[in-house]
Amino acid sequence: MPLTPEQKAEIDRLRAERTPTRRATVPALEEILYEPIPVLDHGFIRVIDYMGDDAAVVQAARVSYGKGTKRVSEDRGLIEYLMRHRHTTPFEMCEIKYHVKLPIFVARQWIRHRTANVNEYSARYSILDNEFYIPAPDQLATQSSNNRQGRGEVLSGPEARRVLELLREDSERAYRGYVEMLNEDDSGAVLDAARQGLARELARMNLSLNFYTQWYWKTDLHNLLNFLSLRADSHAQYEIRVYAEAMIGTVDKWVPMTAAAFRQYRLGGAHLSERGLVAVRRLIAGETVTQEESGMSKREWAELMEVLGQKG
Amino acid sequence: MPLTPEQKAEIDRLRAERTPTRRATVPALEEILYEPIPVLDHGFIRVIDYMGDDAAVVQAARVSYGKGTKRVSEDRGLIEYLMRHRHTTPFEMCEIKYHVKLPIFVARQWIRHRTANVNEYSARYSILDNEFYIPAPDQLATQSSNNRQGRGEVLSGPEARRVLELLREDSERAYRGYVEMLNEDDSGAVLDAARQGLARELARMNLSLNFYTQWYWKTDLHNLLNFLSLRADSHAQYEIRVYAEAMIGTVDKWVPMTAAAFRQYRLGGAHLSERGLVAVRRLIAGETVTQEESGMSKREWAELMEVLGQKG
Amino acid sequence: MPLTPEQKAEIDRLRAERTPTRRATVPALEEILYEPIPVLDHGFIRVIDYMGDDAAVVQAARVSYGKGTKRVSEDRGLIEYLMRHRHTTPFEMCEIKYHVKLPIFVARQWIRHRTANVNEYSARYSILDNEFYIPAPDQLATQSSNNRQGRGEVLSGPEARRVLELLREDSERAYRGYVEMLNEDDSGAVLDAARQGLARELARMNLSLNFYTQWYWKTDLHNLLNFLSLRADSHAQYEIRVYAEAMIGTVDKWVPMTAAAFRQYRLGGAHLSERGLVAVRRLIAGETVTQEESGMSKREWAELMEVLGQKG
Amino acid sequence: MPLTPEQKAEIDRLRAERTPTRRATVPALEEILYEPIPVLDHGFIRVIDYMGDDAAVVQAARVSYGKGTKRVSEDRGLIEYLMRHRHTTPFEMCEIKYHVKLPIFVARQWIRHRTANVNEYSARYSILDNEFYIPAPDQLATQSSNNRQGRGEVLSGPEARRVLELLREDSERAYRGYVEMLNEDDSGAVLDAARQGLARELARMNLSLNFYTQWYWKTDLHNLLNFLSLRADSHAQYEIRVYAEAMIGTVDKWVPMTAAAFRQYRLGGAHLSERGLVAVRRLIAGETVTQEESGMSKREWAELMEVLGQKG
Repeated sequence: MPLTPEQKAEIDRLRAERTPTRRATVPALEEILYEPIPVLDHGFIRVIDYMGDDAAVVQAARVSYGKGTKRVSEDRGLIEYLMRHRHTTPFEMCEIKYHVKLPIFVARQWIRHRTANVNEYSARYSILDNEFYIPAPDQLATQSSNNRQGRGEVLSGPEARRVLELLREDSERAYRGYVEMLNEDDSGAVLDAARQGLARELARMNLSLNFYTQWYWKTDLHNLLNFLSLRADSHAQYEIRVYAEAMIGTVDKWVPMTAAAFRQYRLGGAHLSERGLVAVRRLIAGETVTQEESGMSKREWAELMEVLGQKG
Repeated sequence: MPLTPEQKAEIDRLRAERTPTRRATVPALEEILYEPIPVLDHGFIRVIDYMGDDAAVVQAARVSYGKGTKRVSEDRGLIEYLMRHRHTTPFEMCEIKYHVKLPIFVARQWIRHRTANVNEYSARYSILDNEFYIPAPDQLATQSSNNRQGRGEVLSGPEARRVLELLREDSERAYRGYVEMLNEDDSGAVLDAARQGLARELARMNLSLNFYTQWYWKTDLHNLLNFLSLRADSHAQYEIRVYAEAMIGTVDKWVPMTAAAFRQYRLGGAHLSERGLVAVRRLIAGETVTQEESGMSKREWAELMEVLGQKG
Repeated sequence: MPLTPEQKAEIDRLRAERTPTRRATVPALEEILYEPIPVLDHGFIRVIDYMGDDAAVVQAARVSYGKGTKRVSEDRGLIEYLMRHRHTTPFEMCEIKYHVKLPIFVARQWIRHRTANVNEYSARYSILDNEFYIPAPDQLATQSSNNRQGRGEVLSGPEARRVLELLREDSERAYRGYVEMLNEDDSGAVLDAARQGLARELARMNLSLNFYTQWYWKTDLHNLLNFLSLRADSHAQYEIRVYAEAMIGTVDKWVPMTAAAFRQYRLGGAHLSERGLVAVRRLIAGETVTQEESGMSKREWAELMEVLGQKG
Repeated sequence: MPLTPEQKAEIDRLRAERTPTRRATVPALEEILYEPIPVLDHGFIRVIDYMGDDAAVVQAARVSYGKGTKRVSEDRGLIEYLMRHRHTTPFEMCEIKYHVKLPIFVARQWIRHRTANVNEYSARYSILDNEFYIPAPDQLATQSSNNRQGRGEVLSGPEARRVLELLREDSERAYRGYVEMLNEDDSGAVLDAARQGLARELARMNLSLNFYTQWYWKTDLHNLLNFLSLRADSHAQYEIRVYAEAMIGTVDKWVPMTAAAFRQYRLGGAHLSERGLVAVRRLIAGETVTQEESGMSKREWAELMEVLGQKG
């Protein structure tokens, strides 16, 4: 995450200013406002702005004239109740805006979450930096043998070295081709006065999916939690999961009661099917239940046993 | 807009507090934060929270590390450019939250704008106040003769008096029935200990569409401007238009450059059809153009002549 | 649900026509296409159009050139997998359109689901029919004592009779006032040539929330299932639940595999919290667990016991 | 657009089947259903399914029990009225589903339209084909000198040849690296039994943005027209514009009245600002107006003159 001195100075300038406001403020989030939090080898997230706090959830649920909050225990109880019973609209009353730097293939997964506002750095308009993602050695992995869209064991030895070398060489070559076609480097200097240069919107197509892009991304708390529950999940690709985990850290600072309820009722919980419930009731009654008689597939049964902390 | 002393006190408490923040603040909007702005006989809007300012639009368009703003004239030029060319995403980076009190029939039109977050006062849970909308005498109007969904001339004399009397009597009677069925008044006092009272979710169906409800309504600047361009339009029903106009006043305080561009390119402009453009080009060339040869319907032609300030 | 002879004839005309198509068709749904299914005393739902079937879900998940389906058991397995793991986008590839007649207070709950397309009968433009909802006697209920937004026991005797009488009288009176102000009845006949009549957009405000409105409502299968899981739930108000139940019947005909997976994994299942999972694991291990040591509130504990079929 | 014989056979099978339906059908669209329409060097669009027709727009606007259509001229007039006055909801009642094959950099622009349903071919799960976009020689262009995000004149001679060579070489090399890391080719054959192969979700990052992906994309008619008006515009990048143009051809077959109104009121029309209207009124009155006194920037003035067919 190499910020230029100019970028650092801009951030510092913003952080130095404080203005009085009548709006709800969250000191713990103010503390990290504008600060980049590193993710992967060149990426980051940083909180740029926010609206509301835990009390704003309570205030909206009560459609109140003032803060709407009562005792801390009552507020916490209401937030837990809303989370448990899928009363999602009060959580939509808080909003957060991030600046994110991320590899393009991660951006392609991320953008599938449609209930957000996005402004992406335009490669039609500007020249992309020479920054690309190379996985850390412990993140190189084989195709999973039991999950058709996941990773298996870590790749090592000469095969791993060759992968890293190949990724790096091809990325560097892609950027060289990009710059050559543009006839301009990322400082804007013309390379060869005898050439005209290719339009940016065309030249960019030579870059590979591990190049970094960046965007402003803004969403409400309810949709953010949906995003996080899907992307912080163990089935999500590692390269997006680390972004989700960094963002959960910012949610903890921003709305601690909501974040706790989210862990309790979403991240830490589990959904049982009708057949799963039947099996659980029988297990509690001390009966033995087998996969065969459960009516579940082997995979589904294995998932249930894992949730219940049983050996399949 | 009769706030109770408790409500007033709650608002005053909120307004009295000021906290330092690193976020963008807009002093002109802070000035009116939480204050109810009266609309119709018992309604209001009040700004409860906001995120961003004109500079946040510029910052998002540039995906910048700092404020992203340059000279005032450049920022204004960029905002005008974005508005003119329908580059809408930077305007989505600002967000505002209102508390609105409005008649149910207005709420029914308003809710059709789907890209917003809403928390409405629940009549399943709470008892509605005895407040209903009665039009001011100059707002009583006949059905329009040339617009099947609008108003014509003002109604006056005995017919107008009868309408006002009838609306008032029926509303009062509806509320009496509501309270009788609930067996409870809006202070929660039981009316007749021998009766059990009807569930709130059922009793409310006796209220008419002019009763007031209230909600928290939050949206981004782009979608707000869309809402305002439709609802501040002369074709919108008067009772929702006055809300839109009050809200435009708050947008002027919040994002003055964007508000000016909105007036210039949206509210004050006009969309010409292909046939309309042909007619305009011919008119500029000094030719005479008639409705018949324009290919337009009479109504469309009349609309064009009005836009051009010509007599049809 | 009194259709006029003209409406019946229109529906019969549509039902009589059959055209060949290359699109996916579902004979069981074609069977009931356009037919109104009665709900409440004057309401209905009817399926007006649909796109896709169970195979379209499979086809989209596989991004296939042809149907994408394989053996029935494989297709069912894939649909169950998608439902279980919240892979929701393939279900968005099916679409359905309903014509619904419903009381206004039900419409006000329904419209809160924003990811749908709606065209409502306009009372600015047309005159509403004299049809209002009166609950069946077994649906009159007191306010619930343990759930602040639900119903308790059935109301009976003189209090129930009085409620029904009051609802009916006030509704009839509201409609009389409406017609008098319009100076026009629902056939369009002018009542008193000496009067001008009030604009429709104003007169409608005299009607109460139990009057019927109607709309075209269109949504995709994923969002429909979300709607149904919330509105067919026992916490939903009875008057919207009966619509949801009638719609589930149409989903059974339309996409039987998806409907079965929906019952298995959504309607018939349950979500456990982190604390709930801990308790379940201990119960399976034969331990005794009490509410106090579970860390749950009394209400949450009672909900868990109910899900597990245990006595609290 | 090299379809494999298996893909062709699948499409032919689907096209051969015809089933009777009670739904609205559009023979002209049925004619091309499932057929790929070539776009760029390897891409295509094909219509997979549709719901509704011009009559469905009319039917929804009238909330009718039957077709709701009257005489052709009345229906056309209503559709034009709806288009002119931005009554968008009736157009949302028609839905269409496409299968699209497109370069990844085009997909990244396309996906920014959020009101659509998408299922994309998963490169976590499957291996991408060795197909990449190489611009036709007449589409190689320099950066525009007056539009910072567009193309200028066509590039030719040795510089153009070098660009094509470089794009092709780098793409081929990227695919070789992809296959080597996977240790598997696109037929699934293992290359080297001594290696394990990298997970697909990682290997894909070596591919460049001109590689083709494919998806199912479904949207309603209103949002489709929005997409088309932005992407068929002369400011849109050529590589997405050709997709939009091919899609407009399918809209012409599907809903000819709506398509004509769209050309008349959206594509062929123009939006004038408040200052633009003032200038037009003065020009019609025979006055001379200059850019300086118009209050417009040079660029805005040039845009107006172009719309009016005047020389600046």
